[in-house]
Amino acid sequence: MTDTPDAARIRAVLDEFTAAIRNRDAAAAVAIYTDDAVAYGLAPPLSIEGQQVRDPARIQTWFDTWASPIESKPHGLTIRVGGDIAYAFGLRHMTGTKTDGEEIDLWFRSTVCLVRQGSSWKIAHAHDSVPFAMDGTGRALLDLKP
Amino acid sequence: MTDTPDAARIRAVLDEFTAAIRNRDAAAAVAIYTDDAVAYGLAPPLSIEGQQVRDPARIQTWFDTWASPIESKPHGLTIRVGGDIAYAFGLRHMTGTKTDGEEIDLWFRSTVCLVRQGSSWKIAHAHDSVPFAMDGTGRALLDLKP
Repeated sequence: MTDTPDAARIRAVLDEFTAAIRNRDAAAAVAIYTDDAVAYGLAPPLSIEGQQVRDPARIQTWFDTWASPIESKPHGLTIRVGGDIAYAFGLRHMTGTKTDGEEIDLWFRSTVCLVRQGSSWKIAHAHDSVPFAMDGTGRALLDLKP
Repeated sequence: MTDTPDAARIRAVLDEFTAAIRNRDAAAAVAIYTDDAVAYGLAPPLSIEGQQVRDPARIQTWFDTWASPIESKPHGLTIRVGGDIAYAFGLRHMTGTKTDGEEIDLWFRSTVCLVRQGSSWKIAHAHDSVPFAMDGTGRALLDLKP
């Protein structure tokens, strides 16, 4: 299915975001969020908002734990647009090498909610996660494949 | 802030969903999803779609592990509507007693993406999660509070 012009713009914003993560470019990564964005990350806390989301030092701290580019390749992205909002969701496959030598190979779920601001689209809400085992162990399931 | 009429309808749909979970009413819970809904749950797998999401037996299996009503009270719900789509996100506080006597007291993140179908709103995508510890233990963080 061909993207509508708005869906194509949103796909481009998400591609920019993916590139910012890959290149460990903190300023570019945080520029994609609205001033009042709410993010539910893979890591704690439950939620961060506004200035915390937009703080490049926060994401730089995480980037600094990687020795390689950080791939987080989207698979099967669904995009829907209505008026001045949009949402997009799909799985992402994160790969790369941490500074301690650990090889990361992680599939996670990513949902992004956007708002139109003038001629551009910004991320107002992002939710990334993996499920957890309901077998009493409380393990995050870091080795699932789609 | 007062809800717009559409936001009020979406809040009502989410209240219905919360009530369906509380009452362990599987038919009511699955009726709120679109036929092509994609759900990222607290439990594995990474993603379920369509008939799996709409299967009351799937959710009934989970309901049957509870001895009490299942509270999943929303806190600080943000709702945005544009044209024929909407999204809503916020934390939820799940409490209740499992059949094995375990008392559940879990804060999690919940993002819901909706579409308008005729005069009603349906959930096309739901994403529920907790973060995990990035300290090498791979623990899901089941005891965080907002």
